[in-house]
Amino acid sequence: MIEEQIKPRFSETDALGHINNTVVAQWFEGARDPIFKWFTPDLSLNNWQLILAKTIVEFHAELQYGECVEIKTYISRIGNSSFDVYQEAWQQGIKCASGTAVMVNFDYQTKKSKKIIEAVVEKMQSHRINSEV
Amino acid sequence: MIEEQIKPRFSETDALGHINNTVVAQWFEGARDPIFKWFTPDLSLNNWQLILAKTIVEFHAELQYGECVEIKTYISRIGNSSFDVYQEAWQQGIKCASGTAVMVNFDYQTKKSKKIIEAVVEKMQSHRINSEV
Amino acid sequence: MIEEQIKPRFSETDALGHINNTVVAQWFEGARDPIFKWFTPDLSLNNWQLILAKTIVEFHAELQYGECVEIKTYISRIGNSSFDVYQEAWQQGIKCASGTAVMVNFDYQTKKSKKIIEAVVEKMQSHRINSEV
Amino acid sequence: MIEEQIKPRFSETDALGHINNTVVAQWFEGARDPIFKWFTPDLSLNNWQLILAKTIVEFHAELQYGECVEIKTYISRIGNSSFDVYQEAWQQGIKCASGTAVMVNFDYQTKKSKKIIEAVVEKMQSHRINSEV
Repeated sequence: MIEEQIKPRFSETDALGHINNTVVAQWFEGARDPIFKWFTPDLSLNNWQLILAKTIVEFHAELQYGECVEIKTYISRIGNSSFDVYQEAWQQGIKCASGTAVMVNFDYQTKKSKKIIEAVVEKMQSHRINSEV
Repeated sequence: MIEEQIKPRFSETDALGHINNTVVAQWFEGARDPIFKWFTPDLSLNNWQLILAKTIVEFHAELQYGECVEIKTYISRIGNSSFDVYQEAWQQGIKCASGTAVMVNFDYQTKKSKKIIEAVVEKMQSHRINSEV
Repeated sequence: MIEEQIKPRFSETDALGHINNTVVAQWFEGARDPIFKWFTPDLSLNNWQLILAKTIVEFHAELQYGECVEIKTYISRIGNSSFDVYQEAWQQGIKCASGTAVMVNFDYQTKKSKKIIEAVVEKMQSHRINSEV
Repeated sequence: MIEEQIKPRFSETDALGHINNTVVAQWFEGARDPIFKWFTPDLSLNNWQLILAKTIVEFHAELQYGECVEIKTYISRIGNSSFDVYQEAWQQGIKCASGTAVMVNFDYQTKKSKKIIEAVVEKMQSHRINSEV
């Protein structure tokens, strides 16, 4: 599991008084940085290796401004060229949101998906979660 | 079907040169305004009737800066107190993204879901899509 | 004057119930597209000619969700290699925000500012405002 | 001086490959939280005491994705009911952006500005910067 602390920003609230739902997707993408580095260690954009195929976010409880949020990131599926990242946003002991990003290892030159190399698969396995909790 | 035209903004691109994936969720939420009005005709926040339970977005092709985007909005499921909004983002004749938002008719006072009234169900039926295309 | 209509999005509100101040900068940048095209007609990012040196935004009245906003864009200063874009956001007959963006015609290869060509200066002059109102 | 560390997010980059200029205003607003707390210790929105009158941001160097950013926050002017917050964004030893937010102590009931109380003025003085550097 990879953990990251987020401090919600005032600009991330919406008129209902909580964090806007679309912000959670930004937090989750930000917390996938360590995974991006497995594929592109220097995060160089000329050597980017991933595309996002799908995102799912479930909203369990309201996220508040004024309290830190913990993002927990796991690998929930390891395919041949694609994989799933499962993430949770916790605030004050409550799981407020969870989601899955389906990512594909992608060759931007040939515009084709490509097999995930073994060294990366091993890293994935060390952050594996079996079922989405 | 409800249609809205979006002009992508420079600030909505990301370093890969296209519209960032998290922006699509903002466009889709923006394009649900007519649906919000079915529940809260004056969009008054003190009388808000909806919560978002889940969002799914699928990315089919890159969305570009510099060309208009059409958002198409349908109702894909009508439940007792909840319903699904299915949406697509089209650019230059290509369906670039699609997604579903699961929404719940909600009483913020009692903190409970409530039955969708018949008048709203009828409006939903006029924007019904049978299968997600 | 260049005009653009914006429909505020729910995700652009904040917990005080109005449009968040940081969103106005996004609207203003979006409404500078026609100016970007004077320098890069196809908006190709490999041929980008501008950098932003400074932005000023003044907030005169609250911008509301639920009502359209008109962005008015003018050129308020034409320098040798730099120029000022002055913009206003109007809602229901009220000037709610105004701002200035200081932009520089820039050669990304040599990393130096460069003289604005005469054809662009002429376009600027047709959108000139003498004093910031 | 108040310090906060920011980890730029992928969604905050733009197509020119750097952090989009409009994001800096979000970071700066986020880093003003400790100041908001001087006026509203529990950050309760029903008891909010501040409005934003003006923001200025200057861009000195490109902010990159992949490296942490330090936000430094100072008080650069203390008026009767208004004050200026001066902020800088530093990355890898370079001051990449700086800006000023003009804030007003505001009574949302009477819709009038009000005098900043002495206890808050004292806190401001401990974070005072004399000239914008």
